[in-house]
Amino acid sequence: MKTLKTKHLPWAMGMLLAATMGPAIAQSPTPALPTAEQTDPVKLGWMLGSPPPADKVIRFVDGSGYKFPQTRWSFSNFRQLVPTTQVPRGTGAPVALPRALRDDLDAVSFVPLGKNTPMTWGEAFNANYTDGIVVLHKGRIVYERYAGALRPEGQHISMSVTKSFFGTLGAMLVAEGKLDENATVAKYVPELKDSAFGDATIRQVLDMRTGLKYSENYLDPTAEIWAHTRAGGVLPRPPGYQGPQTFYEFLQTVKKEGEHGGSFAYKTVNSDALGWVIRRVTGQSIGQLLSERIWARMGSEQDAYFTVDSVGNEFAGGGLNAGLRDMARFGEMMRNQGRFNGQQIVPAAVVQDIAKGGDKSAFPQANYPTLPGWSYRNMWWVSNNEHGAYSARGIHGQAIYIDPKAEMVIARYASHPMPNNPFNDPTSLPAYMALAKHLMK
Amino acid sequence: MKTLKTKHLPWAMGMLLAATMGPAIAQSPTPALPTAEQTDPVKLGWMLGSPPPADKVIRFVDGSGYKFPQTRWSFSNFRQLVPTTQVPRGTGAPVALPRALRDDLDAVSFVPLGKNTPMTWGEAFNANYTDGIVVLHKGRIVYERYAGALRPEGQHISMSVTKSFFGTLGAMLVAEGKLDENATVAKYVPELKDSAFGDATIRQVLDMRTGLKYSENYLDPTAEIWAHTRAGGVLPRPPGYQGPQTFYEFLQTVKKEGEHGGSFAYKTVNSDALGWVIRRVTGQSIGQLLSERIWARMGSEQDAYFTVDSVGNEFAGGGLNAGLRDMARFGEMMRNQGRFNGQQIVPAAVVQDIAKGGDKSAFPQANYPTLPGWSYRNMWWVSNNEHGAYSARGIHGQAIYIDPKAEMVIARYASHPMPNNPFNDPTSLPAYMALAKHLMK
Repeated sequence: MKTLKTKHLPWAMGMLLAATMGPAIAQSPTPALPTAEQTDPVKLGWMLGSPPPADKVIRFVDGSGYKFPQTRWSFSNFRQLVPTTQVPRGTGAPVALPRALRDDLDAVSFVPLGKNTPMTWGEAFNANYTDGIVVLHKGRIVYERYAGALRPEGQHISMSVTKSFFGTLGAMLVAEGKLDENATVAKYVPELKDSAFGDATIRQVLDMRTGLKYSENYLDPTAEIWAHTRAGGVLPRPPGYQGPQTFYEFLQTVKKEGEHGGSFAYKTVNSDALGWVIRRVTGQSIGQLLSERIWARMGSEQDAYFTVDSVGNEFAGGGLNAGLRDMARFGEMMRNQGRFNGQQIVPAAVVQDIAKGGDKSAFPQANYPTLPGWSYRNMWWVSNNEHGAYSARGIHGQAIYIDPKAEMVIARYASHPMPNNPFNDPTSLPAYMALAKHLMK
Repeated sequence: MKTLKTKHLPWAMGMLLAATMGPAIAQSPTPALPTAEQTDPVKLGWMLGSPPPADKVIRFVDGSGYKFPQTRWSFSNFRQLVPTTQVPRGTGAPVALPRALRDDLDAVSFVPLGKNTPMTWGEAFNANYTDGIVVLHKGRIVYERYAGALRPEGQHISMSVTKSFFGTLGAMLVAEGKLDENATVAKYVPELKDSAFGDATIRQVLDMRTGLKYSENYLDPTAEIWAHTRAGGVLPRPPGYQGPQTFYEFLQTVKKEGEHGGSFAYKTVNSDALGWVIRRVTGQSIGQLLSERIWARMGSEQDAYFTVDSVGNEFAGGGLNAGLRDMARFGEMMRNQGRFNGQQIVPAAVVQDIAKGGDKSAFPQANYPTLPGWSYRNMWWVSNNEHGAYSARGIHGQAIYIDPKAEMVIARYASHPMPNNPFNDPTSLPAYMALAKHLMK
C-alpha cells in the first residue's frame, strides 16, 4: 500500500481505493500519504500569485479541482469551479454564538479505532486533514481551529452533509402534511413514473431503502455514478458528450433493481430525487426554501451556496457550501429539539424521529465497518450509542456530529485525501466520544 | 427604429446599437422596446420551475444570459453563469443604515433630457428597467424599491461600477506611497513591458488617458473587445478557440495606438491592467483586498462577489456583484469623505481628488452627449455640476450617484435592454437632480 502514488489520483480513483481498501484501512488508518502539513494549500501556493503559475492553477475542465492535494484548496473554493446559487442569510444581524474557548481540549486523549497507541484531540486535527473544526458545548464555542484555505468568513463544500439538510426539509414537509411519506415519488413528480423511483415511497427515499440499479463502484467505468455526476455538471464531460444534461434528466434513466423497502443502501441519487420532490411540492428552489425555513431563521453569519447543474437544480447529493460556524449553528438547533434563536425552526417531532434512528436491522448489510450498530433516518446517520449521537456525514471528512447527552455539537470540514469516511472515522469517532466525556466532567 | 427586433438581440448587438444610436437616442430615449412590466423575469418565468421549461432556461454556453429580456434575470444571478470569488463582509453584525422612508418622492417631477413632457420619479423606475434603487439622504434610507429578480438580500452585477472600486483602491495605494502614479505599468508588471501598457503611467491608466489599439466597436468582429471578453471567460468561446485563456494573457497582446496622456478614451481594458498592478503590488486577490480595505470595514450586510477568469483573476472591467444597500453604503462612505462606521476607510484626500474631477479639456473628444462638462478621474465619472455630483456608472443602468451638496446618495441596479447609458441617462440624470433639490427643501 505504501507504493500507491496517491498524489495525482483523481477523486474517483480515490473513491475506488476507499471502497476497496475499507477493511484494510480500519486496521491501518494512516496509509503513506503526504501529510496535512505537507499539503497545506497556502504553502503549496495553489491558485496564489497574479496570475498563479501554470502548475499551480486548479480548474474544473481538467478535473484538477478533484485531485489531491488540490482538493485542499478547491473544497474551500467550489464557486470558482462550478455554477452556484445563493442561500441567503438575510440582511440583519447574525445571532452570535457565545464564546467560551478552552485550552484543555487539545490534550484530550483517545485510542483510534484499530490501534493501540493513543492520540490527542490536537493531533487528530492534522491526522484528519482538517480544514476547520468548531466544538459547541451547551451552545458555546469551546474550540475553534482553521487551517489551509479555510477562514471563519469562508465557505467549504459539505459534500454529503448536504443530504441531511434535504432529509430534514423533507421530514419537515411530511410533518406538515405537505408530503405524504407513504405516497410514491411519481405522485409528486410524474416525470419519474417510469424510472426506479416511480413506485418508491417518500419514506423509502428518505431512508435510502430503495432498490436501484445504481452503482457507486468507481472502478467500473459503466457505473451509474459517472452518468449522474456528468449529467449534473459535477464532473467534466468528455468531448462529444451526448448524455443527460441535468440531474433530473439523469434521474429519469435510473432503473429498478430488487425491491424497495429492503436494506439500507446508500445511493446518492436518492437525495436528488428527494430534491426534485421538494422543489415540486414547495414551488421553490432549495436555496430559497432552505433560507426561509432554516438558514435565515437561525441567524446565520453567512450566506451559504449550492452548486447547481446547467438549469439551476441544486446538487442534493453534495452541493451545499457554507461557513463552519453556521454548520455548528444548525447542529445546535437540532440539539435543542429544533429550537434556536427564540424560534421553533424544525418541529421537535422531526428532530426526535431523526435522533431515534432508522431500522437497525436494515443497516448491517451496507457494510460500514466503522459504524457498528448505527442506522440511517431522514438522510442522517444515527449512532444509537450510549450518548444518542447522530451525524450528518460527507466524504473526505465533512461532519456535523450531535451528542445530546454531552450537550456537544461538532462541525468539521476536511480535505482528507481518501474520500470514504472509514479513512477518518478511526481518528474521529473515538475522539468525539472522548471529548464528549471530557466536557461532561 | 420601431421595426428593430430587440427581443433576441445578443448583448453585443445591443452594444452595437447603443454605440450607433447614441445621438439619435438622445432625441428619443424610449425606442419601441418591450416595457419593464412586459419583461418582468418572474412573470416571464425565466429559470422558474423544477426544472424550468426548456424555453425558459438561461445558460452561459449559448449566450442567453446576455440576451434581453433574459438579462432581467441573469443580472441578478451571474454566479449561476460563470465562476466567482467571494468578497467577505466578515462574520459580525452589519452596520444598519437608518431608515426614514418618505412617501413624497415618487411624485417628484422632472423633464427627461431631449423631451418636453415631464415624468415623475416613480415613473422613471420602470422607464429605466430598474431592478432596485436605494436613496440615502443624510445617511438615512429615504427610498428603496426592488423589482423582478432582485431582492434586498440578493446580489446584482454592477458592470462598470466595478471600475470605480478598482480606481478607488488604486488611488488609495498611490496615497499610501505603495504605488507611484508617475511610474510605468511595466515597473510593477514586467509581463506588460512589450504591450501598450508598458510605458503608460499608473496615472494615465487610472484616468483612462492611454493610447491603445483597442476597439469597443461591437459592429466589428475583429474589435479587440471580443478577444478581451473571450479571454476572460466573460463571453462564450467559439469551438476550437485558441486565443488567450485569461484576462492577463490578453492584456499582453494590446498594442499601442497614438500616445498616452492625450484625451480621455474609455477602454475597459485599462481597469484590468490596473487590477493586475494592484494584485502584484499588494500580493492579494482583489476580493481579499476589497474586503479588508473597504467591504468588511464599512459594515456591509452581504458578501459581494467577483466574476473571475479561469485562473481566478477578477473581471476588473465589470465583474463586481453586490447587494444594493451595500453599494449605497459605499457611496455614503465616499460622501462622508471616506469616513464611515467610525473609521477613516478611504483617505479624505483620495475622495477629494475624485470629487474635484479630471481634466475637463480631455473629456469632450470622447463624445458623451448626455454628459456635457463632465470629466473622469480614478475611474469615476465627475459631473462638475452645481452640486459637485460624481458617479460610478455601468452599462444597462448601473450607478452609484453621490450628490455632496444635497447630502444624497443613490444606488441603482437596472437591466435596461440597451447597454449604453445614453439610453437611460435622459430619465436618470435630471431625475437625480430633481430629487436632490426636493430633498434640500
